[in-house]
Amino acid sequence: METLASYVGGAWVPCAGPTATLVNPATEEPLAEAGSGAIDFSAALAFARDTGGPRLRQMTFAERGAILAAMAKVIHDHRDPLIALAIANGGNTRKDAKFDIDGAAATLAAYADLGRSLGDCRILPDGDEIKLGRTSRLSGRHVRVPRRGVAVHVNAFNFPAWGLCEKAAVALLAGMPVVSKPATATALVAHRMMTRFVAAEVLPAGALSLVCGGPGDLLEHLGGQDVLAFTGSSTTAETLRSLACVTARSVHINVEADSLNAAVLGPDVLPGTETWHLFVTDVVRDMTQKAGQKCTAIRRVVIPEAVADEVAAALAERLAQVTVGDPAKDGVGMGPLSSAAQHRDVKEGIARLCADTTTVFGDATVPEAGYFVSPVLARAADPRTPVVHDREVFGPVATLCPYSGDAAEAAAIVALGQGGLVVSVYSDQRDFIAAVLPELCPQTGRIYLGSAKMAAQSPGPGTVLPQLIHGGPGRAGGGEELGGAFGLALYQQRTALQGDPSLFSIFL
Amino acid sequence: METLASYVGGAWVPCAGPTATLVNPATEEPLAEAGSGAIDFSAALAFARDTGGPRLRQMTFAERGAILAAMAKVIHDHRDPLIALAIANGGNTRKDAKFDIDGAAATLAAYADLGRSLGDCRILPDGDEIKLGRTSRLSGRHVRVPRRGVAVHVNAFNFPAWGLCEKAAVALLAGMPVVSKPATATALVAHRMMTRFVAAEVLPAGALSLVCGGPGDLLEHLGGQDVLAFTGSSTTAETLRSLACVTARSVHINVEADSLNAAVLGPDVLPGTETWHLFVTDVVRDMTQKAGQKCTAIRRVVIPEAVADEVAAALAERLAQVTVGDPAKDGVGMGPLSSAAQHRDVKEGIARLCADTTTVFGDATVPEAGYFVSPVLARAADPRTPVVHDREVFGPVATLCPYSGDAAEAAAIVALGQGGLVVSVYSDQRDFIAAVLPELCPQTGRIYLGSAKMAAQSPGPGTVLPQLIHGGPGRAGGGEELGGAFGLALYQQRTALQGDPSLFSIFL
Repeated sequence: METLASYVGGAWVPCAGPTATLVNPATEEPLAEAGSGAIDFSAALAFARDTGGPRLRQMTFAERGAILAAMAKVIHDHRDPLIALAIANGGNTRKDAKFDIDGAAATLAAYADLGRSLGDCRILPDGDEIKLGRTSRLSGRHVRVPRRGVAVHVNAFNFPAWGLCEKAAVALLAGMPVVSKPATATALVAHRMMTRFVAAEVLPAGALSLVCGGPGDLLEHLGGQDVLAFTGSSTTAETLRSLACVTARSVHINVEADSLNAAVLGPDVLPGTETWHLFVTDVVRDMTQKAGQKCTAIRRVVIPEAVADEVAAALAERLAQVTVGDPAKDGVGMGPLSSAAQHRDVKEGIARLCADTTTVFGDATVPEAGYFVSPVLARAADPRTPVVHDREVFGPVATLCPYSGDAAEAAAIVALGQGGLVVSVYSDQRDFIAAVLPELCPQTGRIYLGSAKMAAQSPGPGTVLPQLIHGGPGRAGGGEELGGAFGLALYQQRTALQGDPSLFSIFL
Repeated sequence: METLASYVGGAWVPCAGPTATLVNPATEEPLAEAGSGAIDFSAALAFARDTGGPRLRQMTFAERGAILAAMAKVIHDHRDPLIALAIANGGNTRKDAKFDIDGAAATLAAYADLGRSLGDCRILPDGDEIKLGRTSRLSGRHVRVPRRGVAVHVNAFNFPAWGLCEKAAVALLAGMPVVSKPATATALVAHRMMTRFVAAEVLPAGALSLVCGGPGDLLEHLGGQDVLAFTGSSTTAETLRSLACVTARSVHINVEADSLNAAVLGPDVLPGTETWHLFVTDVVRDMTQKAGQKCTAIRRVVIPEAVADEVAAALAERLAQVTVGDPAKDGVGMGPLSSAAQHRDVKEGIARLCADTTTVFGDATVPEAGYFVSPVLARAADPRTPVVHDREVFGPVATLCPYSGDAAEAAAIVALGQGGLVVSVYSDQRDFIAAVLPELCPQTGRIYLGSAKMAAQSPGPGTVLPQLIHGGPGRAGGGEELGGAFGLALYQQRTALQGDPSLFSIFL
């Protein structure tokens, strides 16, 4: 069986125990073993800081951007084998795999573009010169410079390609070296990607490391110039935030955790209209794409009571057309969950949800082997039913929450989720949008407005775009990733310069 | 004896046990008692969120700015009694007291100006419109809106006036209600200020609350829409960061903690020059102002070996001219430390520092009653002596660290402090500045460039200006306060809007 080496300290370190077995979640067939037991994590971090850091910092933004463009090309050149691996190890359909892998390349390309536009500088001025004294001899100016440490990225199992690349793109462009740790269960894609990056020699020594297997004592060696960016469960987030490196040494931490994303259907949207079709398509896509294992997937569908039966019928009809099965086979529209642990967790979550709601759609006839569940659409008699808003079931599961059609009521139902990554609002009525948006903004990192005029070109709310902020308050972790240049801030120190501007202008 | 009531829930709540006694640190005479035992903290927070929040959010930035201007006027109108209280309860000289109280009013006024310039809007666009689709029908835009919770401010003992106002100014302007908790030992000034704000009716109900006494269970009730901003010791910061509200509920926390700020004298600065005099004046001011109890005070003085003896002599001569005593008396240049606890801690810190360094200046003849220490100037034979860089002695204490005159060596010595609030660099030589600045930037939130051309109008490195970032990486807590509009971000959610821009433009 294949064993996954890690790439740290500028070299491949072979797999060593304790190991975990990576499987095909559709067949439970073992695919590979991963174990990080041979890694000296302290040395790995030091190499990144001391070799990767200086090399990145001496480059301009344009030069760092060129690295990202080269990484995107490597992915593009190896797209087919990467897709095959994602199907085998991730339970992805071919479409799911492309969403992950093409999304990775597109995000690298977007940050390559940003690097090009930032150009031949190494330090970013932030804001204008500020007059501080009686004369121009005493002024202030803020600049942003790369932190002098290493960025450790702890990624989720659902997007092994995109997760690695979206975080790495931002950190590398900001000028920080990266140690990336994919979730072990689905690490094959990230590992293969790394082998191709190394073989193509697109990265300076120490700029990007990959840990396949457990984190060992990786996080115990972090300090105040380092960054820890995490995507995963709120339980793990809580553990990471409690680490001494964070509480005592001020490691900069960014968390992207649980999110019960909501879709709100406006009272103006009638069955059969373009906006209605967009809404139905988006909900079904979000429920079934990646078997619902997207942090941005719609979990709560807030719909006017007046059309609740029609929404339920339309969604059930579309869900019934989705074939659940081995994604390596033709005609399959939804694969299994990615791991045995997720399978247990989601089945338990569905049971709890269904106990307090009515099941609109759910089909028990899924393959016996493999980590399959049916899409489940529930309907809450009371839209405030706690289980609907408190527990993210990380699978193909959503719940209809009927409301009166009043904007404030819709926003209040959404707020029960206690902060999320994205809320989608489907409406063409300006009054409804103007009433609901200010109430929703504090609850979420992104609001997707589905309307007739943008329907033809919409990627849906579940697609994270590199240009827009990804993250959200409260349950979603309070973090911010991406958002174009906004994302760089996590990896940079903002410093105020104060004095005679003719002296610090030489440095800008 | 006076008892300090707290102002929460829109009313004064009397002092109740357990109580602490506030004293005059120059005489140890008891002045007042404070205790928060009668406060229902959960209700106090709910009142701020549910009454103060909506009232602030319905105001424009200009209207919120007008509140801050009114607060500044209240302070100005009661300046003399506030100064008298600061002298009595803080051990401040009259100059020290003015630094705190006028600084508070100036910071409110600066944010009042910012409010005026932001004008008649309630929501801040952040960045430009971003094209996302093939046509302009699909675009993105980021906005910043006030968080829907309450901002809890836990302040340090050394700046009861400025600490309250600098944090409150930013939060209130951003649109968040504030619950402020001054350090109990020196709470008299903050309490008096609050009584004047309340009497003058300058604030909407619920916008500003003040807790005099212990925090009780205040912090246990915070959630994902709330903010916790703390200034104080890194030990307390560690405790706050470990609270479940932070680790599990993503309370937005900002920490401003310990900082071993450094001053670097460039090799070009010769004795007797204007820049030399600025340097000597700044170091002596930072050592003795507020008896060295400033988070921005210079603790490490990195000086060329070639002039080390002359620096030592010049500083010792100036320090010898400072009269230590009861600041209520004429001619006193430095008062006592603010509390018995600080007195114990600083004396212990001085003993540890002096054990590993040579004492250049230190006079044991200070008054017997009261919490007095002499200014202490130490000199490290080895500029890398650990105690010099590891322990912030929060009193009138600094250490000379000689270096070769090489910019990289100076920066490496500064970096031993593991992150700080401010570094001052004294030089008129462009090459030295160009070499040292990029190395210093990642280590600090602010760099003050002392030079001949700005000397006449410089406030010194220890003065925190509302226009510039206050905060720093690592040991300093990794936070950011002030910095003009930058400071608002802690209290705002940044949200991406995605869709047909003609629909979300109605909302901007």
